[in-house]
Amino acid sequence: MAATMTTVEELDIDRCLTLLERGTLGRLAFLTDGQPDVAPINYRYHAGAVVFRTGRGRLLDIVHLASAAFEVDGIDEDGPWSVVVRGRVQEATVPEDIELLRSLPLRPMAPGERDHYVRILPRVITGRRLR
Amino acid sequence: MAATMTTVEELDIDRCLTLLERGTLGRLAFLTDGQPDVAPINYRYHAGAVVFRTGRGRLLDIVHLASAAFEVDGIDEDGPWSVVVRGRVQEATVPEDIELLRSLPLRPMAPGERDHYVRILPRVITGRRLR
Repeated sequence: MAATMTTVEELDIDRCLTLLERGTLGRLAFLTDGQPDVAPINYRYHAGAVVFRTGRGRLLDIVHLASAAFEVDGIDEDGPWSVVVRGRVQEATVPEDIELLRSLPLRPMAPGERDHYVRILPRVITGRRLR
Repeated sequence: MAATMTTVEELDIDRCLTLLERGTLGRLAFLTDGQPDVAPINYRYHAGAVVFRTGRGRLLDIVHLASAAFEVDGIDEDGPWSVVVRGRVQEATVPEDIELLRSLPLRPMAPGERDHYVRILPRVITGRRLR
């Protein structure tokens, strides 16, 4: 069997942002009791931030932490890709902001009261594609 | 528009293991310089552990950490599901173990020397399905 040579292409920031804007399902990495944890989230990339809706609970608790990481990946005609955002976590608390975020087509992952909007403000955005 | 009622079903351990065994692509949550980080990995669930291949670098560095979290999700005929494994990280160092792990159909995510096999030994396995 012939070996398949795979190369890794680092994606530039414009490409990363395009892929982030297209996606709706990602995974959030955070700390629970000081240990790594991860959960799938529905998200939108809006106004320079990854935004998701949540209720009270561990996903809202992360707003008290310094930071979180977020990942989205997929496969398109150019092959598999992934984008990772590492950044600061912030809950939207300004009424005008919340009103705006409510207009996003953003479905929470689970049912119930999900009236908190959390933003991950990127510190670092990286992306890779395998070819 | 009629509201769609979604419910969350907690998956039992057998169902979680079945889904883990079926998957090959997941996401690993870990710490980089004390901050949450996340990366896609190709994996196999083998002998009670999530196993992946890596080279030297940040994914191998996690073996010096106490723990990591791993997530796999998908959509099947019953709807979207996700399984999360939180556990202890361990590099396989026993030659017989490594030999066995080499026989797994386990392709690393990126090219290059990927001759380290890392296991996540589950402490907690949880799964959810949206219906």
